[in-house]
Amino acid sequence: MALPCRTNLKFLFRFIRNFNPPKRSLCTAVCPDKKDPTGGGLVFSGIQPTGVPHLGNYLGALVNWVALQNQYPSVLYSIVDMHSITQPQDPAQLRNNILDMAASLLACGINPEKAILFQQSQVSEHAELSWILSCLTSMPRLRHLPQWKMKSKQKNEGSVGLYTYPVLQAADILLYKSTHVPVGEDQVQHLELAQDLARIFNNRYGGLFPEPRALLSSTQKVKSLRDPSAKMSKSDPQAMATISITDPPDDVALKIRRAVTDFTSEVTFDPETRPGVSNLVTIHAAVAAISVEEAVLQAKGLDTGAYKTLVSEAVIQRLTPIREEIQRLRSDRAHLEALLARGNSSARELAAPVLAEVRHRVGFC
Amino acid sequence: MALPCRTNLKFLFRFIRNFNPPKRSLCTAVCPDKKDPTGGGLVFSGIQPTGVPHLGNYLGALVNWVALQNQYPSVLYSIVDMHSITQPQDPAQLRNNILDMAASLLACGINPEKAILFQQSQVSEHAELSWILSCLTSMPRLRHLPQWKMKSKQKNEGSVGLYTYPVLQAADILLYKSTHVPVGEDQVQHLELAQDLARIFNNRYGGLFPEPRALLSSTQKVKSLRDPSAKMSKSDPQAMATISITDPPDDVALKIRRAVTDFTSEVTFDPETRPGVSNLVTIHAAVAAISVEEAVLQAKGLDTGAYKTLVSEAVIQRLTPIREEIQRLRSDRAHLEALLARGNSSARELAAPVLAEVRHRVGFC
Repeated sequence: MALPCRTNLKFLFRFIRNFNPPKRSLCTAVCPDKKDPTGGGLVFSGIQPTGVPHLGNYLGALVNWVALQNQYPSVLYSIVDMHSITQPQDPAQLRNNILDMAASLLACGINPEKAILFQQSQVSEHAELSWILSCLTSMPRLRHLPQWKMKSKQKNEGSVGLYTYPVLQAADILLYKSTHVPVGEDQVQHLELAQDLARIFNNRYGGLFPEPRALLSSTQKVKSLRDPSAKMSKSDPQAMATISITDPPDDVALKIRRAVTDFTSEVTFDPETRPGVSNLVTIHAAVAAISVEEAVLQAKGLDTGAYKTLVSEAVIQRLTPIREEIQRLRSDRAHLEALLARGNSSARELAAPVLAEVRHRVGFC
Repeated sequence: MALPCRTNLKFLFRFIRNFNPPKRSLCTAVCPDKKDPTGGGLVFSGIQPTGVPHLGNYLGALVNWVALQNQYPSVLYSIVDMHSITQPQDPAQLRNNILDMAASLLACGINPEKAILFQQSQVSEHAELSWILSCLTSMPRLRHLPQWKMKSKQKNEGSVGLYTYPVLQAADILLYKSTHVPVGEDQVQHLELAQDLARIFNNRYGGLFPEPRALLSSTQKVKSLRDPSAKMSKSDPQAMATISITDPPDDVALKIRRAVTDFTSEVTFDPETRPGVSNLVTIHAAVAAISVEEAVLQAKGLDTGAYKTLVSEAVIQRLTPIREEIQRLRSDRAHLEALLARGNSSARELAAPVLAEVRHRVGFC
C-alpha cells in the first residue's frame, strides 16, 4: 500500500492517456519514483459535481490528480455534469456544486497552468461523439454491465441516460485519444467498453483511437467512520460517518473521536478483523503521507482514544489550508467561472479536431 | 383522399411546428384551401440521406414539403444523417447521399429562401439536447415502441443508437420548439414520446417546450410496382418495383408497363381487391395533381395497358424537369456544400438560444 490514493467509483472516474503506451498493461496510478513513467502521455479524468468532496474523495482521487499533473506533460480534468443528471438534480444546487467542485479541485492543488480544468457540458463534442459511439454499441453490451444491473435494480430500471452513460464515458475517454485509465475494480468493465469501442471504430473507419489501458490502483479505500465495512460516502445518512474537506477542526475531531473501533486498545492494522481502527490507520497514513507501517509505529504505546487524537491532528493539519483556500475561492464566483471558461475553451481546442476527423470518417462531411 | 401525400416512415420523419396550436389535435398536413392554417407556426421536418428519393418519397413527402414552405412563415428541413448511422453506412456513400439528397430536395422545389435546409450532424445542439432528454426517459418507454420491437427483432437487438433514436427525434422536434408534427401511423408513438418529454421537462424545469401535436395524413401510400401489397421502397431487391425520381423516361415507361395489375382490363380504384391497378391510379392522381375520381374518369374506355401508357406519360412529364435539375445541381458540389453550410448556420442560430436556455434550466450554467 505505497499509495495514498483510492478510487471512489460512485463519485468519479478517471482516465490517463499516454501517446506511447508502456508494455505493461497494469501499473499503479502514481509512480513518483520514476522520472517519466508516462512515455509522454496525457491524463484525462472526470469527477461528478457532487459539491465539496469528502476525505475519501480527496485521498482516493484528488491527491492522485495533483501528483499526475506533475508527472504528465499534459493533463485534463473534467467536471462531468452531464453524468450527474443521470440522477435527478436540483438545478440551483447543481450550479453551486459545479463551482464548489472547481474551488475544491483548485484548493486541493490542481493547477490550471498544468491541467486543463473544464466542465463537460460546455464541450459539445462529448455528446456528439457519444451519439456516434452509441450506434456502434450493442444493447446486450450495456445490459450486462454490473453497474447497470445494480443501479437499475435500486431505481426500478432508471433512465435511458443511466443505461447509456458508459457510452458517454467512452466518448469522454476517446475524445482526447486517452491511452491509460486509472480505474477501480467496479469500473473495469466500463473501461473495457471504451476499449471495445476504440477497436470497433478503428476496424470500421480506420485506426484513430488508441485502446485505453486500465491503471488499477492498489490502495485502500477510506471507510465510513460509523460503519467501517462501507465506503465513506457523501450520501451516508449518518452525519458522523463522513468528513467533508471543509469540516471545521472541531467537527473533524468530534467525528474521529466518535469513530467506531473495537474493544482492543492497542492500534494494529488488520482491515479484515479490525476494520474500524485499520480505517483510522489508513487515514492517518494517507494524510501524513507515510506508510501504514510507519503509522502503526507512531501509534505504539497509544490506546485507541489517544490514537484518535493523533489522527485528528494529522487530518486537521492536512485539511486546514484546503478549507481556507476553498472559502477564499468560493467568495469569488466570477474568478471560478472565468477559470472554467478558459478550461472549456482549451478542451474544445483539443476535442474539435478529433471530432472533426470522426465526423469525416463516419461520412458526415 | 384529397392529398397527394403519403408518409414513407422508414425513409423520413416530419415535423411541423406552429407557435399558436389550433384547437383540433388532428388535421391533414396540407390544407391548400385555407389562407393561414398555421396560426403563424413554423415547420420542421427531417429526411434521412438515403440518396436520390423514389417516387413514393417524392409524392408522399416532398410535394408536401414544398407546399408547407409556401404556407408557413418559417420552415426548417433537415437531412438527418445522425439517424442514418443507426444502420451501418458506407462513409463515402453517405457523403454522396447527403449531397444527392440536398440536390433532390432543391430540384423537387425546396427553396432555400423560404426554408432552412440543413444537415443535422452539423448542429451539435441535437446531440446535446438528446443526452439531456435521455436522462428524462425511462427504459421501458423506449422498449415498448413498436418500431423498436420490429427492428430489433430483424437485427438481433440492434445498436444502442437504434434503441435511443426516438429520443434524438424528440430532441430534433423540441430543439426548434415544434408544435405540430405530420406523422404516419407507425410514428405516432414516437411523437407521443416527444410530447411526454416536453411535459416532463416543463414539469421539472418550468414551461419551455410546446407539446408538439400530430398532423395525420390521410393520403394513400405509393406501393411497389411488383408487389402492390408492400410500400414502394428503395431497398426493394426487385429493380422494377421502384421508380427513382432520376430514372430516365424509358426506364419509367418500362417499369410501369411491367407493373403487376390483374386480369380485369377496366380501370377502377379499389385498393383492397385491385391493389395493382389502384396503385397506378394513386400515382396518376398524385403526379397529375388531380383527384382519384378524376384519374379514373380519364381512364374511362382504356384497358390497363393503355392506361399504363397514360400514367407513364404523366409520371415522365412530372419527373423530367426534376431529373434534369438534379443532374445540373449534382455537377456543382461546391454550390451544394455552400448552400448546406448556410442552412447549418441558420439552424444553429435558432437552436443555440434554445439549448442555452435548456442548459441553464438543467443547472449546467
